[in-house]
Parts: sequence; structure tokens; C-alpha cells
Amino acid sequence: LNDLNTTEIIDFPCVNSKEASLFVYESEKAVPFIVKRVFTISTTESCKRGFHAHKECSQLLVCMQGSCHVILDDGRTRKEVLLNQPNIGLLIPPMIWAEQAYEANTILMVLTDRLYEESDYIRDYDAYLKYRNVK
Amino acid sequence: LNDLNTTEIIDFPCVNSKEASLFVYESEKAVPFIVKRVFTISTTESCKRGFHAHKECSQLLVCMQGSCHVILDDGRTRKEVLLNQPNIGLLIPPMIWAEQAYEANTILMVLTDRLYEESDYIRDYDAYLKYRNVK
Repeated sequence: LNDLNTTEIIDFPCVNSKEASLFVYESEKAVPFIVKRVFTISTTESCKRGFHAHKECSQLLVCMQGSCHVILDDGRTRKEVLLNQPNIGLLIPPMIWAEQAYEANTILMVLTDRLYEESDYIRDYDAYLKYRNVK
Repeated sequence: LNDLNTTEIIDFPCVNSKEASLFVYESEKAVPFIVKRVFTISTTESCKRGFHAHKECSQLLVCMQGSCHVILDDGRTRKEVLLNQPNIGLLIPPMIWAEQAYEANTILMVLTDRLYEESDYIRDYDAYLKYRNVK
């Protein structure tokens, strides 16, 4: 099972001009998989979300605006990553527990290698630890 | 060759709560292709971009924040589409000329069915018309 060492910060190409910046996320290039699903989260207030792990799905998180603290947990260790730049992504492989603390007016974009499947989610932390044989 | 009737407005699923909204873009579901490339454009000032067509690449434009007027042109007719909601996308198939007028602080997300290839771009409008045999 993946531990925290398998999470990864990925740097994406960007092209800046005076008026605009362009950021590029290509499947099987800087994005290490073919993108099956994109979702975005736009917050109006500061809030916490996540609190789950995925059995099979890999996720790549990019903060387009605002900021998001991501807590990563493999059942033995925890670490925190701050996302606040569109050219920086956080790769979360399967079986890593993740929580996100958003500030208001944040836009997070998530690229994943699988379509949505509710059965892929582990939403209970104790169940997660048992799944990992930590408990 | 595609004409303007092949451009399409697509409605994406969203899940709203008091604190945040989640928008979902799934390959071969609401997104009518497998996503090979994602790029985003963040503007600091109002500006115009685009001014090209693609020979093979399809693009799906979604405005995450702010607003973007998209002008579509097939060599015979022009139309304008306003994008300003994350749950609405504009599908631009190959061989449609497109121009975008952004307001400041806009974030546009573009999903495409091909990786970047400079040879896929037609950046000259007269060349575009010749390509379509309009001229």
C-alpha cells in the first residue's frame, strides 16, 4: 500500500504575459495518467472537506485561486501541504487519507484517473486504518 | 467540415452546499471525449486571445470565474457565446475559428481531446478561409 512518500508535488508548465497566465496539464506528460474525470470545487466560505481515501483512484489537486491546506495521512504519519499556485499540483495516490482546509473564494481543480465510483471511497477513518492493517 | 451548428453548449452536474460548489466533468460522459490535455487561463486584465482554429483538436471551454465572450466563426457565419458559469461548457469542434474576450480576473478551463501540437493550429484567418474553400 502507498505511504506518504508516494505523494508528490508536480510542477506544471506555464506561459505568462502581462495580461494573462496559461497553465498546462497534459495526460501522461506532467499529469502521470490519462484524465478520466475533472472536478472543481469553488468555495464561498472557508471550509473543510475531503476526509476520505480512495481504494484505486489517483488524484491530482491544483489550486487555481485562493489557498487550500491538504493534510495527508497514511495511518502512521501525517503531513500538510499548502496549495496556492496554479503551476503546482499535489499527486495523491490511492489509499492515502486526505483532508482539505479551504479559505473562502478558493477554486481547486482535481484531475483523476478514474470515473466516479462511490465504492472506491473509504469515508471512515477507523475503517481506513483497518484496511491498512494499522489497527 | 464542421460548421457553427456543430458547436454545443453542455450542462455539467454540480453539487451545491452553503460553503462550496462542486462541478464534475467526466470523460466520455458530459465531456464527449477522453481528456488528453487540460489548460487554464487566468487573466489579470481584460484581454482578447484565441484567434485561431484547430485542424483536428476539439476543445471544451468552461469559465470557472469571471466572464469570457467567445466569438465563433465558420467562415460564413459568426456567433457569440457568453461563458460565466462553471456548470456550462462550450464545445468547439475542429475547424471552427474562435476568439475570446476576457474580463479581468477570469479563469477559463479548457479540456481537449489531443495533446499540444503546433501543427494543429491555423493562426491566420485568410489561411483558415482558404482551408475551408470559402475563399
